[in-house]
Amino acid sequence: MSSADFLTDFHHVATIGATPRQGVDREAATAEDAQSRAWFSKWVTEAGYTLHVDGIGNMFGLIEWTPGAPFVLVGSHLDSQPLGGRFDGAYGVLAALHAARDVDELVTTSGTVPPFNLAVVNWFNEEGGRFAPSVMGSSVFAGLFDQEQMLDTTDLAGVTARAALADIGYLGTDLRPVTVSYAEIHIEQGRILEREGIAIGVVDRSWYTQKLDIEVLGEQSHTGATAMADRHDALVAAAKIILLVREVTADFGEDAIVSSVGQLTLEPNSPIVVARRVRLVADLRSGDPAIVQAARATLLEKIAALAVEHDIQINVTDFDIRPIRYFPEDGLLVAEQAAVRAGLSTRRIQTMAGHDSVAMNTIVPSIMLFVPSVDGVSHCEREFTTDADMVAGLAVLTEVATDLVHGALLDPAATPGVLPSVRA
Amino acid sequence: MSSADFLTDFHHVATIGATPRQGVDREAATAEDAQSRAWFSKWVTEAGYTLHVDGIGNMFGLIEWTPGAPFVLVGSHLDSQPLGGRFDGAYGVLAALHAARDVDELVTTSGTVPPFNLAVVNWFNEEGGRFAPSVMGSSVFAGLFDQEQMLDTTDLAGVTARAALADIGYLGTDLRPVTVSYAEIHIEQGRILEREGIAIGVVDRSWYTQKLDIEVLGEQSHTGATAMADRHDALVAAAKIILLVREVTADFGEDAIVSSVGQLTLEPNSPIVVARRVRLVADLRSGDPAIVQAARATLLEKIAALAVEHDIQINVTDFDIRPIRYFPEDGLLVAEQAAVRAGLSTRRIQTMAGHDSVAMNTIVPSIMLFVPSVDGVSHCEREFTTDADMVAGLAVLTEVATDLVHGALLDPAATPGVLPSVRA
Repeated sequence: MSSADFLTDFHHVATIGATPRQGVDREAATAEDAQSRAWFSKWVTEAGYTLHVDGIGNMFGLIEWTPGAPFVLVGSHLDSQPLGGRFDGAYGVLAALHAARDVDELVTTSGTVPPFNLAVVNWFNEEGGRFAPSVMGSSVFAGLFDQEQMLDTTDLAGVTARAALADIGYLGTDLRPVTVSYAEIHIEQGRILEREGIAIGVVDRSWYTQKLDIEVLGEQSHTGATAMADRHDALVAAAKIILLVREVTADFGEDAIVSSVGQLTLEPNSPIVVARRVRLVADLRSGDPAIVQAARATLLEKIAALAVEHDIQINVTDFDIRPIRYFPEDGLLVAEQAAVRAGLSTRRIQTMAGHDSVAMNTIVPSIMLFVPSVDGVSHCEREFTTDADMVAGLAVLTEVATDLVHGALLDPAATPGVLPSVRA
Repeated sequence: MSSADFLTDFHHVATIGATPRQGVDREAATAEDAQSRAWFSKWVTEAGYTLHVDGIGNMFGLIEWTPGAPFVLVGSHLDSQPLGGRFDGAYGVLAALHAARDVDELVTTSGTVPPFNLAVVNWFNEEGGRFAPSVMGSSVFAGLFDQEQMLDTTDLAGVTARAALADIGYLGTDLRPVTVSYAEIHIEQGRILEREGIAIGVVDRSWYTQKLDIEVLGEQSHTGATAMADRHDALVAAAKIILLVREVTADFGEDAIVSSVGQLTLEPNSPIVVARRVRLVADLRSGDPAIVQAARATLLEKIAALAVEHDIQINVTDFDIRPIRYFPEDGLLVAEQAAVRAGLSTRRIQTMAGHDSVAMNTIVPSIMLFVPSVDGVSHCEREFTTDADMVAGLAVLTEVATDLVHGALLDPAATPGVLPSVRA
């Protein structure tokens, strides 16, 4: 394993779509995303592996030691948030490429052909900033989302995911690899590993998450000529909702729930017109579904009272509900033993954020690893993880991938492999 | 005078850019604005008058009884707010066209040539919803705004006013008429005339208005993975500012001040990202400048405290400050006597909203008339004024225009006329 090669590649990819403050801006299916995809494609091809691109823009670099055998997948995503960090997603793809090459070299030098093949994946649109919902490519792969429906989603400019992918040349038609297991490494995006001085987080479950689509319907009027008492200002009511979404977290223990409003559209958005309509998305997440449900109930009650107080209509719709998902105990043990062999400390950890591994874990046994994030910050330009922590994570991922292709988690004789839900 | 012709024309123009709920959507320099401009152009030409279009898209229909004599202007604007009402602006232009024709017929039949010529004007971009600031065309005419700077303003899609006007064919090069006085009629956009059962409001002053451009700079982070305590959410702080702007009005007497936030942009506006930056415009208006200044001081103080509380940066910039402007007493008397002759009741009234007449009144004596608005609502589809009230207003405007071309407000021998500041 050459950690120097990995770091060279990682820091090179961080220059694609680079922002002035050390972040990256590579939203799904943009020109910058296309550049990082071209880099991935070139790397895979030059390594002698086979590139497949499926019908939702997921990219696979296939290492086929045994023709026809199913695949272990390792990877993450190269797309980013607008003005996002250079580690989120990209670290997992770069580590997967280098782990796969190390496993391949080991297979070649040892002469022992493992029962499963190996593929590195770059999932489409994990971030969901341009096309919602997030975790799109892996969720389509896992059959959780319908491919045609996802291709029909539009960005704020009205461009479909289908058109955007076709435009950059990544609306593929290749077959998806038949898959038996999945592994991914990612930055923690929280402070726990840093605070406790632990090298590797082994993710045992994902948080319960849900979103609320909230539409506030007021009455448009002239800001300069309408008495305050005569107004039905949709933005004033929306501002109160934004604060309610924030304040509801105080009803529960510290760090028991996170909430936010990150998206808002205002109509007509004219400086001298009282707003007619505001649409916003509230996001609620907790390790305990009952807490999210209690917070949601409180919000619905207070929003209903707000609608009466302001004599306006407020419509609230639940969407994107994601239950707690547990990663399999066998996989946690594989990861912990791999870390022990690499001489690294571990702890079990939950993920508040969604990840491709959470979608994949619904169809095949999956392993999710975290490395520390400095200050816990993420989805912003100052997101940071040290080279040493990245290299340590790469060592563990390489061990895990080696175990998986040799049959850890699955008996190759007993398991024909899980077919992805949609093949083209 | 044929009120039937006027009503036919008025209700026809209301079909241009009509919305399903009886409003219109004719923002400045859009295809719908172009249609109403084409209608204006055809009407003026068919009446035998001369059409001029100046360098900021203002349109003039010139009736030149005495070649070389200066002009009295009457008019308003045909552009609207997005999903705006069909009366705001359009009523004033339609009334001006019909008043002008009546005056012209009177001149022809009486054989008495007045000392001043008469022109009907359709001002560019009074509303300011697409290109800010509002009251753009008349303010350029009056020399309050620089024409080149206004042509360089952009809409939210980045299109300049210059390009938009050129695109619809109304970036003109004609001379502006040399002007001695101005008259305009408009719906009240308030409840006073309706409440008191008065037919005509004679505007004696405009309110003091000012805007604040507020930029809230937080820190972008992951909604799903950032502890609540670690966030610097620009949207939460912005929501508090929206409520402060609303609440500050309660410090003063009822109807003493109006305030609002009508425009807001959010970055990155992704459902799973805590907001980095919010920019919003607060609008403060009062009949008493001291009240606006007191409200502004309170807001600045509370916003500064908010920035400390949230550990974020908030930048506030004053702009678009418009002092109280008084309409000349002589003009008020001309209007009141005209109403008496038409058998209509009047009262003096202030305008909270900006109008082209307020800009024109800075360079020539101007008269501003109001007719009642049902429920006082404006800048929305359910804005309404009865046919009878519109026809009554037309009668008064015709009287006023007749007086003005015959020298009311000005001694034609003593006054050479005011040259507009920019001629092309």
